[in-house]
Amino acid sequence: MSSPTHELQAYLHAHIPLSHAMQVSVLDITADSVLLAAPLAPNINHRETVFGGSASALAILSAWALLHTRLRDAGVASRLVIQRNTMDYELPIVGDFTARSSLADPDAWPQFTRMLSRRGKARMEVRAVLECAGQVVGRLSGEFVALR
Amino acid sequence: MSSPTHELQAYLHAHIPLSHAMQVSVLDITADSVLLAAPLAPNINHRETVFGGSASALAILSAWALLHTRLRDAGVASRLVIQRNTMDYELPIVGDFTARSSLADPDAWPQFTRMLSRRGKARMEVRAVLECAGQVVGRLSGEFVALR
Repeated sequence: MSSPTHELQAYLHAHIPLSHAMQVSVLDITADSVLLAAPLAPNINHRETVFGGSASALAILSAWALLHTRLRDAGVASRLVIQRNTMDYELPIVGDFTARSSLADPDAWPQFTRMLSRRGKARMEVRAVLECAGQVVGRLSGEFVALR
Repeated sequence: MSSPTHELQAYLHAHIPLSHAMQVSVLDITADSVLLAAPLAPNINHRETVFGGSASALAILSAWALLHTRLRDAGVASRLVIQRNTMDYELPIVGDFTARSSLADPDAWPQFTRMLSRRGKARMEVRAVLECAGQVVGRLSGEFVALR
């Protein structure tokens, strides 16, 4: 059985081996958001909380996956490059955790695809919220460039 | 045979499984800097360059390791928490890569340890430069809090 979530998960595990090592799973994909999850065990640190590098990586993957999915659904062939990200670690992550991405400014999407079509290059800011047991534990803001 | 670099590498691999999955090695430790390396293969992405999450994770580890080493050498028992980081991805990373950390302001160290001793809490900014084949490919700035 194939579904968009299974397909994305298989794609990530096949092409980004770190996502496999982190045991990333794809829980939900909508036009507005991609929800990823990862368990504590493969992402633990010496304090028995989630390693900051794992938290950042899950947030980056969810942000990338949202742009990737939207561009594919819009029929725009392009490659995505992350240029910058800022990550705030708000609370220690003591268990399994999720990252939910969203566009920083959804209204900027038409302009983004227009720029990409006309000039072959466009920028977009994507956010991701990390949660653990229903609590927000971190936030990422990432700047991506799409290139045709 | 045991050396500080071997000890740190064994510690990372034992306590942070992602560092093992990334095949992180510790190349050098001085009072001013910790130099880590990782190969492309376990950190690759769908574009056959280094996944941004891996780049961030190596930079975070080198920054953390510098503060960890300096605090231990200063005989200050403490735990370190990353609060925030900003990562700039300057060039695609097309091969094995390194992260070299340094204090953003080395002159702030005495004040940092004094604050930590007196108030049980102090902040420090650490930077890391990512290189691949002798070229700078990314930069991290991370804010850490040490707690007694």
